[in-house]
Amino acid sequence: MGFSPLVDELIQNLQFLPGVGPKSAQRLAFNMLQRNRAAAQKLATSIALAVEQVGKCTRCQILSELKICDICNNPQRHKQLLCVVETAADVLAIEQTASYRGLYYVLGGHLSPIDGIGPKELGLEQFTQYVQAQAFTEVILATGTTVEGETTAYYLANLLNKSQISSSRIAHGAPLGGELEYLDAGTLTKAISLRAKLEVSS
Amino acid sequence: MGFSPLVDELIQNLQFLPGVGPKSAQRLAFNMLQRNRAAAQKLATSIALAVEQVGKCTRCQILSELKICDICNNPQRHKQLLCVVETAADVLAIEQTASYRGLYYVLGGHLSPIDGIGPKELGLEQFTQYVQAQAFTEVILATGTTVEGETTAYYLANLLNKSQISSSRIAHGAPLGGELEYLDAGTLTKAISLRAKLEVSS
Repeated sequence: MGFSPLVDELIQNLQFLPGVGPKSAQRLAFNMLQRNRAAAQKLATSIALAVEQVGKCTRCQILSELKICDICNNPQRHKQLLCVVETAADVLAIEQTASYRGLYYVLGGHLSPIDGIGPKELGLEQFTQYVQAQAFTEVILATGTTVEGETTAYYLANLLNKSQISSSRIAHGAPLGGELEYLDAGTLTKAISLRAKLEVSS
Repeated sequence: MGFSPLVDELIQNLQFLPGVGPKSAQRLAFNMLQRNRAAAQKLATSIALAVEQVGKCTRCQILSELKICDICNNPQRHKQLLCVVETAADVLAIEQTASYRGLYYVLGGHLSPIDGIGPKELGLEQFTQYVQAQAFTEVILATGTTVEGETTAYYLANLLNKSQISSSRIAHGAPLGGELEYLDAGTLTKAISLRAKLEVSS
């Protein structure tokens, strides 16, 4: 269609990104070429380098260019506490809370028989080996709160129980900063049934 | 914050893109590394190549890796008709209508004294030289319909008039496929005052 094969190709290649259609790809391409070539060049180098060098931490399976990632390697982290999440993005979200100082294990997804993802596809054998080799006192199951995430959590709890490792699930309830009227029925039910006593100083 | 300097850097570098904040940069980075490394690699190459090789067509100033772009070089285009637009994206939009077969001139912006962009900054000297060198019978002024776009169109019309080149402005009016009630007053005023007789075959 266009006036320059290289620009057309760039627009085409940008469209594999999630949420980028033909119009936004055009906008991104023109922005790169007209406004900020140095930044675009830096981005290209950064993508190429990451694609080439970033693999997985051999322990926790998180994205890392090291064999053992900075979190697993950090002597300040509690080595007896493990948190199991679905993706590396979940790790970032938890790290940003600064409320957890244990280790992680990244499953890379959740059990989903409909998509052909069973315990084997999710690499749960490797997970079992990992948790058995370490002396974890507790494993926090922080998979998503979708149906698949819950199923995966139950499956893992069972698995850990067999290995005599104690596990826990993140709390369900009303998120902070919201009006009750906009909460879905399932969450509200959980919030009520899991209610806790308010500590009041007399 | 993160677990991998290379991934952190990638997330950082993605944020120069328009409309990409920290969260979407994260999503893009993880998508690249977890789902589609081949496409990411291709994108990196494509960006680097475009940044390095795409310059401007010496005639119409459009983005192109050639000295004279495919449109200027196409013997099938009408060489007497010129369409002046603000950006390369505007050229793409007009090309997609397949209703115009003349040449283009890309200004690269509009007159905007408030931002210090006068006739000199917009390179209007080069434009005047270009249109005087060619034997255009008509120059269509297709700058934006913002205040700055209109001002630029009037300025160019004046300039062309001095060189005895006839110019025209794209039509204003109601866009197709819309309800009148949602149209702004300015457009509606134009649509009414520029009304045309409906051709009815008797």
